[in-house]
Amino acid sequence: MTGLFQHATAVHRTRGAELEPSTDVRAGVPTDMSAEASFDAMVQPGWDIGGNANGGYLLAIAGRAMVEVTRRPPLTITAHYLAPAPAGPCSVDVALVRAGRRTATATASLRQGGGEGGREVIRVLGTFAEQSDDGPVFVAGAPPPLPPYEECVEPAQPHEGPRPALNERLAVRLRPGDDGFREGRPTGTAEIAGWFAFADERPVDAIGLLLVADAFAPAVFNTELPVAWVPTLELTVHVRGVPAPGPLRCVFRSRFVHGGLLEEDGEVWDAGDRLVAQSRQLALTPR
Amino acid sequence: MTGLFQHATAVHRTRGAELEPSTDVRAGVPTDMSAEASFDAMVQPGWDIGGNANGGYLLAIAGRAMVEVTRRPPLTITAHYLAPAPAGPCSVDVALVRAGRRTATATASLRQGGGEGGREVIRVLGTFAEQSDDGPVFVAGAPPPLPPYEECVEPAQPHEGPRPALNERLAVRLRPGDDGFREGRPTGTAEIAGWFAFADERPVDAIGLLLVADAFAPAVFNTELPVAWVPTLELTVHVRGVPAPGPLRCVFRSRFVHGGLLEEDGEVWDAGDRLVAQSRQLALTPR
Repeated sequence: MTGLFQHATAVHRTRGAELEPSTDVRAGVPTDMSAEASFDAMVQPGWDIGGNANGGYLLAIAGRAMVEVTRRPPLTITAHYLAPAPAGPCSVDVALVRAGRRTATATASLRQGGGEGGREVIRVLGTFAEQSDDGPVFVAGAPPPLPPYEECVEPAQPHEGPRPALNERLAVRLRPGDDGFREGRPTGTAEIAGWFAFADERPVDAIGLLLVADAFAPAVFNTELPVAWVPTLELTVHVRGVPAPGPLRCVFRSRFVHGGLLEEDGEVWDAGDRLVAQSRQLALTPR
Repeated sequence: MTGLFQHATAVHRTRGAELEPSTDVRAGVPTDMSAEASFDAMVQPGWDIGGNANGGYLLAIAGRAMVEVTRRPPLTITAHYLAPAPAGPCSVDVALVRAGRRTATATASLRQGGGEGGREVIRVLGTFAEQSDDGPVFVAGAPPPLPPYEECVEPAQPHEGPRPALNERLAVRLRPGDDGFREGRPTGTAEIAGWFAFADERPVDAIGLLLVADAFAPAVFNTELPVAWVPTLELTVHVRGVPAPGPLRCVFRSRFVHGGLLEEDGEVWDAGDRLVAQSRQLALTPR
């Protein structure tokens, strides 16, 4: 399957041993097997807010390179954000930490600028495994109640400045009222909810979920905090399922804003009422 | 300040440049400055459950070594668990990823067994910074309602097997009823709450909070799931403040158990009703 998002996060191996999945990773290997590989990729234009690529998009690029090495989709992945990334070439260095029978752990470093003078943009640590349907089910939660997709609203044009290019790539629809902050009418609750889909209606895979986790405006925009840049320090995403086809219901909430920092928790639910991703980030409070 | 826990997580630098904080890290350095250092430490006996060291305790050892390199306390730190760790010597290799004016990001690898035949126990990625009192405050949450410390109960002796050694180090007191699962009377809600203190009444610092985040029995023990080993795959802790003196109020909840995996969310509140840590882990469902 090829398409807009897969193209946008394409990675090309430039060095490092090709693992033989039948004899190495899939069959289980000694816990200290090491494997490293480097990839070239592009931070494509159009995945940015104000010229700097979306943090979830950058995580998706790194995640796709890590999948090439671990041969499994992401299960839990954490990125620490070191520098903003404009559109342009980047490299992703992946190192396998441990490959077991079911899970594989790896690190990645996404850099721009190349060579010694290059700049590291994100450092990533993740554990990768196929989803399973095993075991007991205990769910204390439900998808956010939302009007149908067609009755939700496109993210509004910001009051000042250009429309975020990201909005052209995505077909996000917000719960009516949740982007009133653009017009100076925040709801007063640090929550934002809505539907997520790609503009080209492509299904959201495990890599796509990494983008979903950072694709909405910050929930704190619905408080009295200023609507300004919220720099993410760290984003962790748990991928809990492969989404069923159809738009995803998402809700993001911030509960603890103090000390110049805020956390934001996200839930992503699929059309089958299954939680497919959970996210948490720590960010600097907007000034 | 020295004491039981600081001793228990002591690290001794064995190689790597000593940074000059006045000229390097604290003053801000180029984003690609690299610094590596190695430390010897001990996984002390008595911090284990059934012979394998507690995951939060291991994270605290790695975190203390990372503080030596970054010269700052932890802000957000993620560990991926690779192998169980019995008591005995370990090494921690720390590499600085980036040091900025306020924050510094580093990785760590805790290993046992030494040399090429050694085994990596945890891989850690964290960002470190002093806490600040800056900025707006917006809190949608409150400490868990608990009876006074004296009216809460010591964690019960497990029905079978030895008492966890960890219980001797800590003075945890559980909300009455929350450990009824030991006697086959789970509450039915995947939640466990109580007070945390060290047995020697030592104050809990930022490193101590990393232990607190994993010091309670799994919340799912209060459901119909089996009371058995819950192997943590990944644990992320946000340190949101330095605790005021006195026991800490803690609550841990699991909301999403499916696909052989569970998440557990924790909150740690100090005597001043301030959230001082937030945690989330992804673990394998007990069998």
